[in-house]
Amino acid sequence: MNLAMIEAAAERLEGHARVTPLLSSPFLDDIAGRRLFVKPECLQHTGSFKFRGAWSALSAMDVAQRARGVIAFSSGNHAQGVALAAARHAVPAVIIMPSDAPALKIANTRALGAEVILYDREKEDRDALGAQISAERGLTLIKPYDEPQVIAGQGTTGLEIAAQARAEGIETADVIVCCGGGGLTAGIALALEGHAPGLRARPAEPAGFDDVKRSLEAGEIQRNAAMAGSICDAIMTPQPGEMTFPIMQRLCGPGLVVTDDECLHAAALAFLRLKIVLEPGGAAALAAALFHGDKVEGDAVIAVGSGGNVDPAMFARTLEKLSD
Amino acid sequence: MNLAMIEAAAERLEGHARVTPLLSSPFLDDIAGRRLFVKPECLQHTGSFKFRGAWSALSAMDVAQRARGVIAFSSGNHAQGVALAAARHAVPAVIIMPSDAPALKIANTRALGAEVILYDREKEDRDALGAQISAERGLTLIKPYDEPQVIAGQGTTGLEIAAQARAEGIETADVIVCCGGGGLTAGIALALEGHAPGLRARPAEPAGFDDVKRSLEAGEIQRNAAMAGSICDAIMTPQPGEMTFPIMQRLCGPGLVVTDDECLHAAALAFLRLKIVLEPGGAAALAAALFHGDKVEGDAVIAVGSGGNVDPAMFARTLEKLSD
Repeated sequence: MNLAMIEAAAERLEGHARVTPLLSSPFLDDIAGRRLFVKPECLQHTGSFKFRGAWSALSAMDVAQRARGVIAFSSGNHAQGVALAAARHAVPAVIIMPSDAPALKIANTRALGAEVILYDREKEDRDALGAQISAERGLTLIKPYDEPQVIAGQGTTGLEIAAQARAEGIETADVIVCCGGGGLTAGIALALEGHAPGLRARPAEPAGFDDVKRSLEAGEIQRNAAMAGSICDAIMTPQPGEMTFPIMQRLCGPGLVVTDDECLHAAALAFLRLKIVLEPGGAAALAAALFHGDKVEGDAVIAVGSGGNVDPAMFARTLEKLSD
Repeated sequence: MNLAMIEAAAERLEGHARVTPLLSSPFLDDIAGRRLFVKPECLQHTGSFKFRGAWSALSAMDVAQRARGVIAFSSGNHAQGVALAAARHAVPAVIIMPSDAPALKIANTRALGAEVILYDREKEDRDALGAQISAERGLTLIKPYDEPQVIAGQGTTGLEIAAQARAEGIETADVIVCCGGGGLTAGIALALEGHAPGLRARPAEPAGFDDVKRSLEAGEIQRNAAMAGSICDAIMTPQPGEMTFPIMQRLCGPGLVVTDDECLHAAALAFLRLKIVLEPGGAAALAAALFHGDKVEGDAVIAVGSGGNVDPAMFARTLEKLSD
C-alpha cells in the first residue's frame, strides 16, 4: 500500500468518479476561528466517498474474475458504492447489509441493481457470512477498508484535497476525516504525505465509538465496547482495520471525538451555509472542526464531509438544531 | 452585450467565484426519461449564482467610483451576492430589500456587512427608492439583471456548462434555467450560442409568474398580474428585463411553467439524490426537467439549480414531499 497505488487509482477513476469541490463560508470561518473548508464527498456518486474505493477495486480486477461478480458487506454507503460500480462494469453484485441499516440505504442498494442479503448486526458474524456466500458463488469479496485497492481509491480524495488546498493558498492545516475502519483516513494520510506535507490527516469519531483515537494513543488496536447506540451508523466499526491502523499510526495526528448532538448541529450548519446534505456520521469531521477548534492546528482546517445518505426524518431532526 | 464580455467576466471571476460541478443520479435519469444533469449554483458563494454577476459588476467598475460604494435592490439572493462582493472589494454596500423577504436572507445580508433598508413590496416603488438613495450618497446602483456586466457574470455559468457538457459527451440538450428578470437565462443563452451550439437555453417559471414565457410567445414584453402568491420568491419579477428580453427572444427555446408543488417535489429529490439544498425558486428548472419531460428536447437535459437560500421551516416542508 503506497502513494503510487493511489495515483494509479486516480487514473482509473478519471471520468468515472466526480472531482468534488472545496466549499467554504465566512459564517463557518467565524465559528471555527480559522479558515474552514469542507470537501463534500456527499456530492460523490451514490452520496459518499465509498464509490471511489469501489470503483478502484472493481477497475483493478482481472476481467474474468470480475465477470463472476463481487460481494460486499456494509452498513450502507460501501454497499451503494459497490452496487453502482458493479452495475457500471456490468457485473453482478451481492451486498450483505445489517437489518437495522437505514431503509433508504437498503432501498437504494437494491435499486442500483444489487442483490441485498440482510443479517443481524448483534448476533451474526458478517465476515463469516460473506466468506461463505462468496465461496459458494465464486464472488470476489470487496472489503470496506482492509483492502489495498479500496484504500487507494479513497486516497484519491486526498490527492484532490492537496491540489485544492494549494490553489487556496493553504500551507498548514489539519485535514479531519470521519473515521470508521480507517480506509478513507489512511488513504488521505498517504496522499497528503506525498503531495501536501504541510497537511496532516486526523480521524474524527463519535463518542463511545472512538476505537481509532484510543488505538492511536495505545499504539495498538483497541475495540469498541458497544456496536450500537450512535446515530453515526456510517462510521460505527468494531475496531480499526489491520491494514489501515499502521498507516494511521505512522501518519495521523491525534483522534478527535464528537457527540451525536454536535454532528447534528454541524450538519444543520452545512445545510444553512454550504447548501449540502450530510448524514450524522458524515458531519463528524465538520463537528470537530467547528466545535473543537482548540484541539486543531494550522492556518486552516479542512473537514471531509464523507456522506449524505440520511433519511428525511433524521434530516428534519437535523434542521431542528437551527431553532435550538 | 456579447460573448466577449462574458469571457472577460470569466477571467475576472477566476479564483473568486466557485466553478460548480455538474451533478447527476441514475434515479433522476429514470424520472426524467433521459440523462439529467444539475448545475448546482446553490454551491456558489452566498448560496446562489448571483455572486457571479455581483463580482463581475464590482470588478469591472472604475476604482474611484467603486470606492464610494454600491447599492442594490433584491428579494435576497442578489442582495447577498452584492454584499459579499462589496465586502471582498472592501467598499460599502446598501441593500434595499422587500420587508417580506425570508428572514434568513435579510439576516445574511446584514451579517455580510451591508446596510439593509426594507421597503413594502406592494406599496412602494423599489426603483424610485434605489435611485433616490444612490443619488444622495453617491452610490452606484447594481441592477439585478438589466445591467451588461451583471448579465456577463451570470453568463459565466453557461461557459462552465458548455465545457462540462462536452466532457460528458452531451451533443444536444435543453438547458433549463430558473428565470426571474432573465439575467441568468440571457447570459447562459449567449454563452451557449458561442461555445455549445447544440445546447439551447429555456426559461422555467412558477405558474402565475410566467411573464417570460408569455413575452416570448407574444414577441413583446408582458407583465405578471400579481406580485405575490408563490413560494418561489427568488424568481418573482414583474416582467422580463428590457435588456435581457431581446437576448432571450433571439436565443431561447419556449418557456416552461411549473407549480409550487412541483418545485417542492424537485427540491426534495435534489436532497435525496444529489445531496444539495435548493430553495423552491431554485428548483423550478429541475422541476421542469423532471416533470415536464414531454416538452423537453435533446439527448440530455441540464437544469440550473440557481439557489439554495431556504428557511429551515420551508425545507422541512420540502422533505415532507418524500412521504407523500
